[in-house]
Amino acid sequence: MNALIIHAHPEPQSFCSAMKDLAITTLQQAGHRVQVSDLYAMNWNPVASAADFQARSNPDYLVYALEQREAVKTGSLAPDIAAELDKLLWADLVILNFPLFWCSVPAILKGWIDRVLVSGTCYGGLRFYDRGGLAGKRALLSFSLGGQAHMFADEDAVHGDWEPMLRPLQRGTLAYVGMRVLPPFAACHVPYIDQPARAGILDRYRDYLQGLDQVEPLTVPSLADFDRQLQPLTNKEQVPA
Amino acid sequence: MNALIIHAHPEPQSFCSAMKDLAITTLQQAGHRVQVSDLYAMNWNPVASAADFQARSNPDYLVYALEQREAVKTGSLAPDIAAELDKLLWADLVILNFPLFWCSVPAILKGWIDRVLVSGTCYGGLRFYDRGGLAGKRALLSFSLGGQAHMFADEDAVHGDWEPMLRPLQRGTLAYVGMRVLPPFAACHVPYIDQPARAGILDRYRDYLQGLDQVEPLTVPSLADFDRQLQPLTNKEQVPA
Repeated sequence: MNALIIHAHPEPQSFCSAMKDLAITTLQQAGHRVQVSDLYAMNWNPVASAADFQARSNPDYLVYALEQREAVKTGSLAPDIAAELDKLLWADLVILNFPLFWCSVPAILKGWIDRVLVSGTCYGGLRFYDRGGLAGKRALLSFSLGGQAHMFADEDAVHGDWEPMLRPLQRGTLAYVGMRVLPPFAACHVPYIDQPARAGILDRYRDYLQGLDQVEPLTVPSLADFDRQLQPLTNKEQVPA
Repeated sequence: MNALIIHAHPEPQSFCSAMKDLAITTLQQAGHRVQVSDLYAMNWNPVASAADFQARSNPDYLVYALEQREAVKTGSLAPDIAAELDKLLWADLVILNFPLFWCSVPAILKGWIDRVLVSGTCYGGLRFYDRGGLAGKRALLSFSLGGQAHMFADEDAVHGDWEPMLRPLQRGTLAYVGMRVLPPFAACHVPYIDQPARAGILDRYRDYLQGLDQVEPLTVPSLADFDRQLQPLTNKEQVPA
């Protein structure tokens, strides 16, 4: 298996960075090939803009997704995006590894999503969810946070359940492009716990990564249950792909 | 009223930019003062990093939120962050105006959130939700997207309901820092509709902005319903602030 880890933490000594290092060794020891994009170390540019295209389909008016589609066809994506897209297409497993910032990814990682998950390759038209361009791949979120597990335990918890809080990332992004989304790994309360507790989290993360084939992906809609206008089919009549 | 519009679209001629312009004139005509942060025009840096602090509490190990807290105390936030924070504290109403990228904000706007909503001023300790540092202010999301309204109509829709999809932004961010979150304004299907339909959306947006005092904010938890460990109080015994 080929695994790609997208890592985004501003402190190389952080616990989150240790999670990234552990994932590398654990996956390699299991015989997998691993590539890492350490976005802070790469000084990754997260800002989607007209500069992302070496040629423009419409130089007078930027429709970002349309230019992505054209740039994929003509091979005119900016080199930093093309390099990341190559890694993404190579990967069978994609891990986004980050500190939870505002219940989401840090901006530098959001900009990897915005720029690399290009229309035309990863999705487009009616190719999303189970018909997405990256179908066959698996993905997961692994993140550190200050909050405790009970704060996201269910809808009565202070921040509600994890699933809605992570929905834009897991369903709106990773599942949207067709990847099967494995359960997230949350390293909770990290700034407030002692070294043995941190080591315990790393042990759990290693176990989790070693058992990936046993976990069930997130359930997401099948487009077969929707009509061509993406209205739910009440009679479950299947629409041909 | 003082209104701050944070605008983040890479194309100045976009419909989303027209929404920003309409909001400026509508709010000004109603007698309000308006400031705009046009993040693309400002070439805003979205990447949270050690460079955000002119002095460091711990120069050897970056804990971003802790450095924010110290920098607020000592006045050593980077000037671009301090300028945005001043605008935020001045505002009674904050509008985030953007194209929906991956069911969230573009990275450049995520980086405004990451860098400007500083710990110590906006939240910290048990100051969040109804005890958040920005209590008394109101906020709303106004965004454009390619998708249609029925795709987010309810949990049976192809992308589920808006509320969970927007939860990290509305609850995890805006409500977290204490702002009352007004209903989002979604301009749907924008790339696919004709000029009269676009004008109709702008008319609805004008009406919405003129009637802000009549709309109910999102319901979010009150910390009075949780104990000091943020476990839900089953007996609803109030904890003093």
